[in-house]
Amino acid sequence: MKKITLDHGSGGQLTSDLIDELIIPSFEDPALKELKDGAVLNDQLVFSTDSFIVDPWKFPGGDIGKLAACGTINDICMAGGDPKYLSCALILEEGFDIEDLKQILQSLSTVCAQAGVSLVTGDTKVIERQKGNQIFINTSGIGFLKKKTGYQYQENDAVILSGSMGRHGASVFMAREDIRIQGELHSDCALLKEKAFQAFACEGLRILRDPTRGGVATTCIELIERSDFGMELWEDALPVDKDVETLCSILGLDPLYLACEGRMLCIVDQKEAADLCSALGKEARIIGRITKDHPKKLYLRTKIGALRQLHKLTGRPLPRIC
Amino acid sequence: MKKITLDHGSGGQLTSDLIDELIIPSFEDPALKELKDGAVLNDQLVFSTDSFIVDPWKFPGGDIGKLAACGTINDICMAGGDPKYLSCALILEEGFDIEDLKQILQSLSTVCAQAGVSLVTGDTKVIERQKGNQIFINTSGIGFLKKKTGYQYQENDAVILSGSMGRHGASVFMAREDIRIQGELHSDCALLKEKAFQAFACEGLRILRDPTRGGVATTCIELIERSDFGMELWEDALPVDKDVETLCSILGLDPLYLACEGRMLCIVDQKEAADLCSALGKEARIIGRITKDHPKKLYLRTKIGALRQLHKLTGRPLPRIC
Repeated sequence: MKKITLDHGSGGQLTSDLIDELIIPSFEDPALKELKDGAVLNDQLVFSTDSFIVDPWKFPGGDIGKLAACGTINDICMAGGDPKYLSCALILEEGFDIEDLKQILQSLSTVCAQAGVSLVTGDTKVIERQKGNQIFINTSGIGFLKKKTGYQYQENDAVILSGSMGRHGASVFMAREDIRIQGELHSDCALLKEKAFQAFACEGLRILRDPTRGGVATTCIELIERSDFGMELWEDALPVDKDVETLCSILGLDPLYLACEGRMLCIVDQKEAADLCSALGKEARIIGRITKDHPKKLYLRTKIGALRQLHKLTGRPLPRIC
Repeated sequence: MKKITLDHGSGGQLTSDLIDELIIPSFEDPALKELKDGAVLNDQLVFSTDSFIVDPWKFPGGDIGKLAACGTINDICMAGGDPKYLSCALILEEGFDIEDLKQILQSLSTVCAQAGVSLVTGDTKVIERQKGNQIFINTSGIGFLKKKTGYQYQENDAVILSGSMGRHGASVFMAREDIRIQGELHSDCALLKEKAFQAFACEGLRILRDPTRGGVATTCIELIERSDFGMELWEDALPVDKDVETLCSILGLDPLYLACEGRMLCIVDQKEAADLCSALGKEARIIGRITKDHPKKLYLRTKIGALRQLHKLTGRPLPRIC
């Protein structure tokens, strides 16, 4: 690889390769084995960062402000943290409408207030016309560690998904291509703090993750590739809403690889799975299990009972969804 | 104001207006009176963020990687913190050279190692060709508060500048316009941690700030506008290197408004000023004093003894210098 391609930003295989083969080796730091979405520091603080470049900046169910606040706050929760402080760094294109900026900041602010998070520091940069693309936002956040999590799984641990797959990816795609289908396909973009705190209450909670770029399939592989276990997902348990399914079947997309922005994946002791599932609400499902059978590999048990290996997202069905 | 202009990103008057009139009011948070470069949280943590969009990404004396690490680490030090952790979020343009990215990460990593700072979390996004501009980097950082600082000045407190003015702005300008002048005009981009720690040792230290965007003049106004004091700078004490002076006189730029990226402004009790000045090295100068005479206003005592009011940077002699 000699030049950056859009695939490097897909959140899939090439993003992992870039991080593992170029970024981490640049920092000759023996402690840096992995760059997580949320870093746990000294068993006390959780620190996370994300830059948002979603195109268009407004989509059904949200905008870049809501996404930038939810994204980083959720990452802190997924790492076991109680989110407290947020930074907001804007990169604006010359000519961007100030009323639009106001609306975006309002969205960001509303989410912060809901989450009990304070905006404490920021930065504003402006790029010449045509050298940026309207607005990019970086948010970074700090939380306090509430629950230690990790890759210590056991055979038959349950994999829970808190709601249906792929709504965010599908709705950004529709907004971008100006596709109209019946119904109201909007993003699932939402805070996960409450759901995360419900999971923290489980003694047998192993790990949490939000399946954003790369979707449920890529995220599940990331969850097992650093453990000695494999994972099996059950096709007939995977929740996909009718409207997302329709869009996917028209366009040949797989909802397993479409981003969610308000869903949580939990791996939890099977004994606590049913209780956690009901606590998470009626949309939550047990979608699979941890197994020793195929370490570091993800398999899908299809509706007809066959097993098919799933890989990380390759290619880029949808660039710039967050 | 209806549209974003390049002036909104200059770090001068319009940047302040945007922050005070639009960004802060969007967050109905009574605690949010001011968005500082480095926020002090609970008298314990210091948190800072900056997005870097410097054009070109490589300039004499540094590159965007060095700048991104120094910038945020310095902001933490300027807020009284001991910097410990850094995040790095990349926005790459499709087609960006991977060898260049490697070089940039190497620069960033070198600065982190020098500062004893660990890179702990990151993010990678890719923008389509022509919708970004090579590379933008956000770094955010966390430090632990070592020295409480603030706007509590006293009459005749000394204003110290740790080195000459405007080298960074001048060198980026030269790199961009491909101007050649005799000598080796390179950026002052450097870590300020050691110098900040020397200042922390002064009992009478009031505040520290690095005069980046907007230069020494704009930064000095920011240092007094939230106090009940004014400031006087002495033209014949202001250190400007010969090469920067030459470039400024050719181009009609004022070094007082050109960015530094490795200089520190300190306001300190006059009794400790001479000692701190020598501790900071032979380039450090006492360049002015705090006065009750003209609250919230900055005046320059010119070489012929006249007093001239200085305002924040307006317009944009040099966009995208950091």
